[in-house]
Amino acid sequence: MSAAPAMGSRVGSLVVVGTGPGKVELMTPASSAAVARATDLVGYGPYLDRIPAVRPDQQRHASDNRVEVERARLALTLAASGWQVVVVSGGDPGVFAMAAALFEALDQGTPEDQSIPISIHPGISAMNAAAAKLGAPLGHDFCAISLSDNLKSWDVIPKRLKAAAEGDFVIALYNPASKARPQSIYDAFELLRAIKAPSTPVAFARAIGRHDEKITLATLAEADPSIVDMATLVMIGSSETRLINKPDGTSWLYTPRSYGARP
Amino acid sequence: MSAAPAMGSRVGSLVVVGTGPGKVELMTPASSAAVARATDLVGYGPYLDRIPAVRPDQQRHASDNRVEVERARLALTLAASGWQVVVVSGGDPGVFAMAAALFEALDQGTPEDQSIPISIHPGISAMNAAAAKLGAPLGHDFCAISLSDNLKSWDVIPKRLKAAAEGDFVIALYNPASKARPQSIYDAFELLRAIKAPSTPVAFARAIGRHDEKITLATLAEADPSIVDMATLVMIGSSETRLINKPDGTSWLYTPRSYGARP
Repeated sequence: MSAAPAMGSRVGSLVVVGTGPGKVELMTPASSAAVARATDLVGYGPYLDRIPAVRPDQQRHASDNRVEVERARLALTLAASGWQVVVVSGGDPGVFAMAAALFEALDQGTPEDQSIPISIHPGISAMNAAAAKLGAPLGHDFCAISLSDNLKSWDVIPKRLKAAAEGDFVIALYNPASKARPQSIYDAFELLRAIKAPSTPVAFARAIGRHDEKITLATLAEADPSIVDMATLVMIGSSETRLINKPDGTSWLYTPRSYGARP
Repeated sequence: MSAAPAMGSRVGSLVVVGTGPGKVELMTPASSAAVARATDLVGYGPYLDRIPAVRPDQQRHASDNRVEVERARLALTLAASGWQVVVVSGGDPGVFAMAAALFEALDQGTPEDQSIPISIHPGISAMNAAAAKLGAPLGHDFCAISLSDNLKSWDVIPKRLKAAAEGDFVIALYNPASKARPQSIYDAFELLRAIKAPSTPVAFARAIGRHDEKITLATLAEADPSIVDMATLVMIGSSETRLINKPDGTSWLYTPRSYGARP
């Protein structure tokens, strides 16, 4: 209707997909179909490695971790040049992942960037994959908080942890132990222990959906944050979250849909 | 190792799957494979209808809405009798859906129930599907709150809304307008307007992923809760959530990964 597309009549596109937690059976058919159509795949190397080779003519642009906006700019540039670009994110691209980075780059981008057809495909985030393995801890109201302070000042994190604890939400902690700030998870547990009951169930769900998956359950009082790394999703129960023993000696963790009316 | 399984040597199983928001391309291959293996499918009728017929010998047990624990008990009974049972949930079974109902039934169940092999497959919840269509509103810390008071006293809902607003979380509201309590969403908006900035972006995402999908964006001050129904996911921004205009006159909604440092 207005200006001609860049590069003559070639119109590129940009799709952001999520691989889910790792195994291809948790990646949606919509994301797989977008990958199959792409001329160019852009992503953090280990996430690109999860995608089977589908076409010999497909270009792969692997980048390091922590360069999300640069990666998004590369994707926009390729799409503005007429290529069919897929950005490969881990988990759900919309949850602490590549979709927000793309819109940051777009917000700072050119009018040409802003005319690129963009779509985002949802995926299975670490929180949802961990919840399924644990039982149903997210069966009632919950919050998700990233403990990474790469991109925010530390003071907003205790403010949100306090609000989440006082609201008696189930709390999912992403990025609980970055190399730059290993003490984050200790600070978070100290704050939560001052507000929540010592018997509150806590789960450390590590590498869920991968071959080295490991689940550790404990109470808030006894949980040991030293086992947490960047591949760990930490889940902290509400006052209603409870355990059911399994015959094999492990337990299911779930939060009833009712509140204040235990079964 | 201990007691023999019920019904002689026939060992049943129970898997809970999520269809995602509706279209089959957002249901994971893991969930589809479980459905293909099932002898019995149990679920709310409209969710079962999303599943293509895969085998003529497969029994379908459709039930009404709001009988989740009865449905879970039926599934446990069938599995204890030696059948391969799949419970079909909408969205992600772990998020305000069938997985928590199953564990409630299991918690009240017999030792035979508790020896049934159970697994939960995660899915794409309404919040994640809506976020993908909107842009990336869940790019930073967020809460999910159900406004249904079928199963909890109303007083816990304002407590959680207040905590979520004071913590400056992005807020996703599930079940925003039940027939039993149509004023819930008005009460919620009144509470949020007293705490959050009038310019806070709000999205009403209705029937996302279905043919009658509709998105409405507004500010918190001007948003009209009367358009909300039970098929609507309501998303309320944090102080950082912002819009990017698209060439077609609509807008992307996203929350930057940074906090207090706008691009």
